[in-house]
Amino acid sequence: MAGASGYGGGELLRLLLAHPEIEIGALAANTSVGLPVTDVHPNLPDLEGRVFTDAETLAAAEADVVFLALPHGQSAAVAATLPSTVRVVDLGADHRLADSEAWRRAYGGEHAGTWTYGMPELPGARARIAASRRVAAPGCYPTASSLALAPLLAAGLVEPQDLSVVAASGTSGAGRSAKVNLLGSEVMGDLTAYKVGTHQHRPEIVQALSGVAGTAVSLSFTPVLAPLPRGILATCSGRATPGTDADAVYEALRSAYAGEPFVRVLPPGRWPHAAATLGGNAVHIQGTFDAESGRAIVVSAIDNLGKGAAGQALQCANLMLGLPETAGLTAQGIAP
Amino acid sequence: MAGASGYGGGELLRLLLAHPEIEIGALAANTSVGLPVTDVHPNLPDLEGRVFTDAETLAAAEADVVFLALPHGQSAAVAATLPSTVRVVDLGADHRLADSEAWRRAYGGEHAGTWTYGMPELPGARARIAASRRVAAPGCYPTASSLALAPLLAAGLVEPQDLSVVAASGTSGAGRSAKVNLLGSEVMGDLTAYKVGTHQHRPEIVQALSGVAGTAVSLSFTPVLAPLPRGILATCSGRATPGTDADAVYEALRSAYAGEPFVRVLPPGRWPHAAATLGGNAVHIQGTFDAESGRAIVVSAIDNLGKGAAGQALQCANLMLGLPETAGLTAQGIAP
Amino acid sequence: MAGASGYGGGELLRLLLAHPEIEIGALAANTSVGLPVTDVHPNLPDLEGRVFTDAETLAAAEADVVFLALPHGQSAAVAATLPSTVRVVDLGADHRLADSEAWRRAYGGEHAGTWTYGMPELPGARARIAASRRVAAPGCYPTASSLALAPLLAAGLVEPQDLSVVAASGTSGAGRSAKVNLLGSEVMGDLTAYKVGTHQHRPEIVQALSGVAGTAVSLSFTPVLAPLPRGILATCSGRATPGTDADAVYEALRSAYAGEPFVRVLPPGRWPHAAATLGGNAVHIQGTFDAESGRAIVVSAIDNLGKGAAGQALQCANLMLGLPETAGLTAQGIAP
Amino acid sequence: MAGASGYGGGELLRLLLAHPEIEIGALAANTSVGLPVTDVHPNLPDLEGRVFTDAETLAAAEADVVFLALPHGQSAAVAATLPSTVRVVDLGADHRLADSEAWRRAYGGEHAGTWTYGMPELPGARARIAASRRVAAPGCYPTASSLALAPLLAAGLVEPQDLSVVAASGTSGAGRSAKVNLLGSEVMGDLTAYKVGTHQHRPEIVQALSGVAGTAVSLSFTPVLAPLPRGILATCSGRATPGTDADAVYEALRSAYAGEPFVRVLPPGRWPHAAATLGGNAVHIQGTFDAESGRAIVVSAIDNLGKGAAGQALQCANLMLGLPETAGLTAQGIAP
Repeated sequence: MAGASGYGGGELLRLLLAHPEIEIGALAANTSVGLPVTDVHPNLPDLEGRVFTDAETLAAAEADVVFLALPHGQSAAVAATLPSTVRVVDLGADHRLADSEAWRRAYGGEHAGTWTYGMPELPGARARIAASRRVAAPGCYPTASSLALAPLLAAGLVEPQDLSVVAASGTSGAGRSAKVNLLGSEVMGDLTAYKVGTHQHRPEIVQALSGVAGTAVSLSFTPVLAPLPRGILATCSGRATPGTDADAVYEALRSAYAGEPFVRVLPPGRWPHAAATLGGNAVHIQGTFDAESGRAIVVSAIDNLGKGAAGQALQCANLMLGLPETAGLTAQGIAP
Repeated sequence: MAGASGYGGGELLRLLLAHPEIEIGALAANTSVGLPVTDVHPNLPDLEGRVFTDAETLAAAEADVVFLALPHGQSAAVAATLPSTVRVVDLGADHRLADSEAWRRAYGGEHAGTWTYGMPELPGARARIAASRRVAAPGCYPTASSLALAPLLAAGLVEPQDLSVVAASGTSGAGRSAKVNLLGSEVMGDLTAYKVGTHQHRPEIVQALSGVAGTAVSLSFTPVLAPLPRGILATCSGRATPGTDADAVYEALRSAYAGEPFVRVLPPGRWPHAAATLGGNAVHIQGTFDAESGRAIVVSAIDNLGKGAAGQALQCANLMLGLPETAGLTAQGIAP
Repeated sequence: MAGASGYGGGELLRLLLAHPEIEIGALAANTSVGLPVTDVHPNLPDLEGRVFTDAETLAAAEADVVFLALPHGQSAAVAATLPSTVRVVDLGADHRLADSEAWRRAYGGEHAGTWTYGMPELPGARARIAASRRVAAPGCYPTASSLALAPLLAAGLVEPQDLSVVAASGTSGAGRSAKVNLLGSEVMGDLTAYKVGTHQHRPEIVQALSGVAGTAVSLSFTPVLAPLPRGILATCSGRATPGTDADAVYEALRSAYAGEPFVRVLPPGRWPHAAATLGGNAVHIQGTFDAESGRAIVVSAIDNLGKGAAGQALQCANLMLGLPETAGLTAQGIAP
Repeated sequence: MAGASGYGGGELLRLLLAHPEIEIGALAANTSVGLPVTDVHPNLPDLEGRVFTDAETLAAAEADVVFLALPHGQSAAVAATLPSTVRVVDLGADHRLADSEAWRRAYGGEHAGTWTYGMPELPGARARIAASRRVAAPGCYPTASSLALAPLLAAGLVEPQDLSVVAASGTSGAGRSAKVNLLGSEVMGDLTAYKVGTHQHRPEIVQALSGVAGTAVSLSFTPVLAPLPRGILATCSGRATPGTDADAVYEALRSAYAGEPFVRVLPPGRWPHAAATLGGNAVHIQGTFDAESGRAIVVSAIDNLGKGAAGQALQCANLMLGLPETAGLTAQGIAP
């Protein structure tokens, strides 16, 4: 694994420690080379004795699968050192977008190319992932948003234009970097919107939903930073097409996710709690039709480090390796 | 004051203790009659020696102004015991709506009648409040939402249909009642949507904005419970009319609130933080136009117990009593 | 299981769902009989379809092991309905104390009798637990406190008199009961001491440590309620005996817990974080000698619902059933 | 003011904006020179238009009082530029200790000299402060700890040796510096002890209490970082002298603080809540005697940025300027 000292990498290590088939190999972390892993992740005592290495050790390790959990712009260089036969799952943003121009606008710098998009619950995605050696695991906001709206677009219940997502996220989504605005003193007791209309995850959501809708969608996206370590709650809506009602919305969600091991459409009247997904790979979803405004509204909750990052990456790796998709993963959350 | 043992009542007591002109009279609190006030509000040591009374003491007290901070359905009975010459500000919901049928749908039971709506920053409202003996102070969500969208509707920058508000609130908005879903164990680390499409504050927002727009507006409204004691962050949007751009949105906000002592339109590029309004009567606002979705987006932040309840009620009382509107109030927040 | 609707019961259900050998049988919950389990525990979707029953179903279920997670005073009646051959682990307080008079002073009412005390890491305890059909799983504060101080008492490094514990706990320790002082609005942003000198867990700590010391110990105990859902951090100290130094303290801890699967004495210089134990069965410990005051100071951290309740109960059950002690348990925590 | 961009400086600015007699002059902040003050303190809109300057502007400003809120080691250089006639209050640690060797051990570098210690409620301190031109405002932990234990030492109710303080603090006490261990993701949901036996505030507490006791005291001191932005709860204890009982402890506290405007000894049975002091200058105190351990236990709560920093500094400045001691200060807290 590369980027093993960050929050996504740490969560993936936790999952892998309990995985029945995958053993943890080299753990690269540029700025922490030589440090004991448990200095950075004291929550993982079973890694006692392990030390962070540099990225060059990954190629030598001859692993079956390599996870990259790096800041954007750094994945391609590491991936280039790995044989094409090795499965690689990138938790970062470098290979998620098919449109290089959109990538450059969102992230700056040069686009490193497009890999299979790793959201197994999207139509047709599971088979594509299983057949791939390179998979780009989706971002946290795109996971919550796309899984909420995809069934409605697929069923023609909402217009593809003027979709709306307002999503509140815990702070771990911003990573383990020392910034004043992410200090506990600043975030506890606070709610703030940021990157309104400019967040780099919007093109990814648009790409995923346009693929489902079969036409280019448009979307307003407002992320909100909320005072919890983990969890996303996404309030998603679209203008309903004629004839859409609450039952149709609910049934579209239920039928889209029937049999999915990690997506739970809640019983009628129950709305998702981010806390109910903590530590797991679950997506909780509920939806309705609001007659007064003419909008279908779907709310989804995930653990941004679980299904929004490490959990989904592992789910993809399981598929790529021919293992049971749920190996080492759980739909149960830690509560309270 | 009636309802002095709740969160809104407590915050109002704190403000009144520092008010240069108003002295605190009888403090009624049905379920706490006979208890020392500092047992319920240990944060207010200057009330040492004061004891909660029952509501009947209010009429006898011959106060210049009486505040009602009661659960809905209880204000009318108390107000009926007060002479019509006494100024009364109701922090509760009983007298906010002009449409009795809308009130019944939202709250159940019989509508007690309509009082002057106490949001001084709405067009024409300040003078109406100053001339009234009965004022209904607005709800917390309606304050954040209406002040965000009103300037855009007044300036014709957004369509009156399909407005959208997704507003996250701290837990004190739900009051000081012992419910399992409001336990700290449940709310810390959680985000959840509730009363989606059915929240009782929607008709109040619709009423306020329809008044500004001069036509009936429609609005989807999704409240989100967030893990902080106080604070609301409302993400509000509307479909832009042709020609609307980011500058027009910003200018509409700036010109609408120029000279307002409590509304601060932030410098360009800065988005509101709920924490920056803690303990004060401030509203922080920022807005833009999102070309991709065609929506104007305005984000507002308030302290739900300040400008969203006690602060605004006191602001109204100041106007009704002919005192400086800002007496005993501040636009400064406590941070961090 | 009886008491399956509380926080301790819920956590135990989460652990049992992942247990390789134990299947979940009847789930009794007095006040929730007939309710879907996922209504109360939406974090456990794998229990979809399960419904809470009443306690009478437990006897009929003929389980190998029954867990009781009931408020104090209720365990004996349920236990009496179970055959003596059934293993019973009581997460409640009813059977923890050997001294009936101490029990009555702490809890009131009649003492129901004493069961094997279920803290496997105490000297000699593991074998006693394995041989028992009735085990009283320890309280959360006693677990954190006793495991911190026991090695120092056993090694004679601190005096048995004037031990001190100041322990801060997350709110779930107070249970899932609707009380105003446990509301999120009250606890977030707050720290408060409670039951100073009178907490019902003191006699349990005294009993455990007196057993280790071989003489009656005395202890001041101050619990502090802190704004997090889970986690205990206990600052424990004792007056050092002559010759005690920092190395001796550290070595006593290391040697006491060498080989223990769930107790991690941290590397020198690292102090425990409650968050590093979240969701797991780990105890993190560090200690030193403070020359200025002459006290040995040991700090321990646990998840109060993990090692402090459900995890430890399951650890005992594993021992009682002859299963691997660590089955279904982990020393890894969820972080951040 | 120097150091106006930090948390202590920001809180002092908030207080000064509401002060009836003091006007805010130059605002120096080394790393923020030229920045609008409201960029750093968006909670203080009344400072719109103000810009941070460098420290050289302070001497030129000819203020009656200058506040220094700088990291340790920086105050002396700034103070040296100010005429000796100017009142200076240092919120930092540079001039608190009389023992230069103790200062060096605690902070490193050269000791800049000793100023009048600014805790007005200590015996004799008020007059000394009023007569001084240079006052060192105490640290947050020392304020909470010293005010808790001083009355017991003065009354001879506890031994001067083996005092104990375990104090949990909100994160703002660690300042507004970008460190990974202070990130919201790290601190929310966590409790951790730090600098056990080595915290730089211990010699300050020892100095204050030794002065009261008339003999050198010894003290163990364990600080705990807790997940709230502001607030300290200190659990303080000492070995009771013969004859000490609960009444004696309580009476010692009551009589010591009778007439003090900011210290509230709570009614019997009520223990302090840090949240009840938020935003104010109050100290809440309760104490008892624990017969089982033979310890007197006193718990105190303050706002670490209020009475623990900015509030106390302003209280001192009021005394130095001959203003009412309570000017611009309040004993009321913001709750919930």
